[in-house]
Amino acid sequence: MNLYEAKKVTIITEKMILKGVCDIIDKCGASGYTVVPAGGKGSRNIRSTSEHASVIDDFANVIVETIVKDIDTADAILKQTSEKYFNNYPGIAYIEDVKILRPTKFKL
Amino acid sequence: MNLYEAKKVTIITEKMILKGVCDIIDKCGASGYTVVPAGGKGSRNIRSTSEHASVIDDFANVIVETIVKDIDTADAILKQTSEKYFNNYPGIAYIEDVKILRPTKFKL
Amino acid sequence: MNLYEAKKVTIITEKMILKGVCDIIDKCGASGYTVVPAGGKGSRNIRSTSEHASVIDDFANVIVETIVKDIDTADAILKQTSEKYFNNYPGIAYIEDVKILRPTKFKL
Repeated sequence: MNLYEAKKVTIITEKMILKGVCDIIDKCGASGYTVVPAGGKGSRNIRSTSEHASVIDDFANVIVETIVKDIDTADAILKQTSEKYFNNYPGIAYIEDVKILRPTKFKL
Repeated sequence: MNLYEAKKVTIITEKMILKGVCDIIDKCGASGYTVVPAGGKGSRNIRSTSEHASVIDDFANVIVETIVKDIDTADAILKQTSEKYFNNYPGIAYIEDVKILRPTKFKL
Repeated sequence: MNLYEAKKVTIITEKMILKGVCDIIDKCGASGYTVVPAGGKGSRNIRSTSEHASVIDDFANVIVETIVKDIDTADAILKQTSEKYFNNYPGIAYIEDVKILRPTKFKL
């Protein structure tokens, strides 16, 4: 089976800025994204209200992930998200290599 | 500590075909899988009812991930899932390299 | 844009040992972690009560992920979690390579 190289961008941040992050992903040319509710504890200790993340009471965070065709698109999403939000909101962003099945799904 | 190379297969699709996807994973020889509810927006715009994914109201998607021993097993899961479902259901599938602790857990 | 190499550690296990796993992550020097509720089916068939994971009724599992600066820190988290819990609790643990934006967030 033919597999194609692509990049997965993951952004973990507060739910309140989810719409803005999704807008950036859209504008950078990604064909979609997936959103998962999450709890957690961050370097500024403001990602949850308790010392340890409670998976029952606290879903103030979201994980947003998107598959994009190349590192430049992934870079653009990270850069714009960081510049717009990460001075004022907690957030983690990272890029991973993935192999995908259907390149046409991701505007390769 | 000894770490072992393995593959992680991730399939993001609609909840309604979760059982079928899990059956494929089982039959391909994986020893288990993990399921996470998710929202999202896909290339066909049918992965959520609103323009932006709502993490509160919309968990119509699921992320299914499994760790398998080699690329052939990962390929088989992707291929069978794609052939059976991805003409009629939205879905993303990808493979990543992971390092694992306990190879016996994954039938290496 | 400058990106930095880092390691993502993922531990999937039962919710009841979440606090202990988070303590290990903290003590190993990670600056934070993210927690996601999950269902699943494991190699010992004790990760869910039904044959197939139900994403509606069964969130007895959690996915805990953390980004750390190097493989030694990642190794330490996996080793301590495994030694303390994985003889008595079901669990999966793996390490992935990631590229991150802000190394200062992760005590690089």
